[in-house]
Amino acid sequence: MSSFEEKTIHTTPIYTGRVISVQVDDVTLPNGAVSKRELVKHPGAVAVIAVTEEGKIILVEQYRKAMEKHLVEIPAGKLEAGEVPVDTAVRELEEETGYACDRMELLVSFYTSPGFADEIVYLYEAKGLKKLEEKAALDEDEFVTLIELTIEEALALIREERIHDAKTILAIQYLQLKELKKI
Amino acid sequence: MSSFEEKTIHTTPIYTGRVISVQVDDVTLPNGAVSKRELVKHPGAVAVIAVTEEGKIILVEQYRKAMEKHLVEIPAGKLEAGEVPVDTAVRELEEETGYACDRMELLVSFYTSPGFADEIVYLYEAKGLKKLEEKAALDEDEFVTLIELTIEEALALIREERIHDAKTILAIQYLQLKELKKI
Repeated sequence: MSSFEEKTIHTTPIYTGRVISVQVDDVTLPNGAVSKRELVKHPGAVAVIAVTEEGKIILVEQYRKAMEKHLVEIPAGKLEAGEVPVDTAVRELEEETGYACDRMELLVSFYTSPGFADEIVYLYEAKGLKKLEEKAALDEDEFVTLIELTIEEALALIREERIHDAKTILAIQYLQLKELKKI
Repeated sequence: MSSFEEKTIHTTPIYTGRVISVQVDDVTLPNGAVSKRELVKHPGAVAVIAVTEEGKIILVEQYRKAMEKHLVEIPAGKLEAGEVPVDTAVRELEEETGYACDRMELLVSFYTSPGFADEIVYLYEAKGLKKLEEKAALDEDEFVTLIELTIEEALALIREERIHDAKTILAIQYLQLKELKKI
């Protein structure tokens, strides 16, 4: 592995919020020059692939303020303080969709925006889905609509850009690959 | 489509940097309550799937300060002011890898972190790759190592978490799907 490590000379805290914090680091580059890195710190998140017995992918539609539009995404949510990812996955699936599962299987994790943010997403597959009698409560500032789609229908929504985020497209590709060969 | 639109009451600018800007919006929720949204604005970026005649995927290893580690990713870079995405794709491929191409085909676009950022990535596939005689210059604060891998080798790097970002995993799944069936 090459070593292009950037050494931090100084960190300037910019903002500490409820979800993200922002800082600017002065760094020494491998050639000795000095540069600035604008960095967003995030607690990390989970996303859940959940497919019903009928082969429908469970998705949620919600308004995303950053883009000022509604997006259809797989269930997801950020880690609360002290929460291990698998518990977040179980909680978010129940809260957003009203489904519980027998077990959560970690498929892969990934950074979402490595150029400026440390957000990591743990992608789970929910096995043994079952509808809850009573839907768990959403966060007080969360409003979502449940949508259940076949892979073909989900691919159509990607073309229409109603599904338009990396984790959901990655999840649908995973299901396509799983259908084509056992992965 | 449901309408869970959040109306902006007030925007508080927090930070304007070279890459990102940060603001906090006070919003009215669909139920009339008021909440805050922490938002990162980003100019958008491109990423390029480039496969050599020998079937090797072209990747670059670089240090990512946000995670404090080296990651292996497909070539990518942010849009400069006034630049159209296809030109960014051509430029980044040449600068980071020393390859030019006959044409860039837009495959899909996606938001990377819809919960807090508006960053969009335009994912291109470079067709008709050819090695440049002379490699274009990188940005002065950019240090990358070129790596060429088969799909199998890339999958191994995902398992080792040396490939560990959404766009690159999505790109490799695209190539797997392409190999399994014409997509």
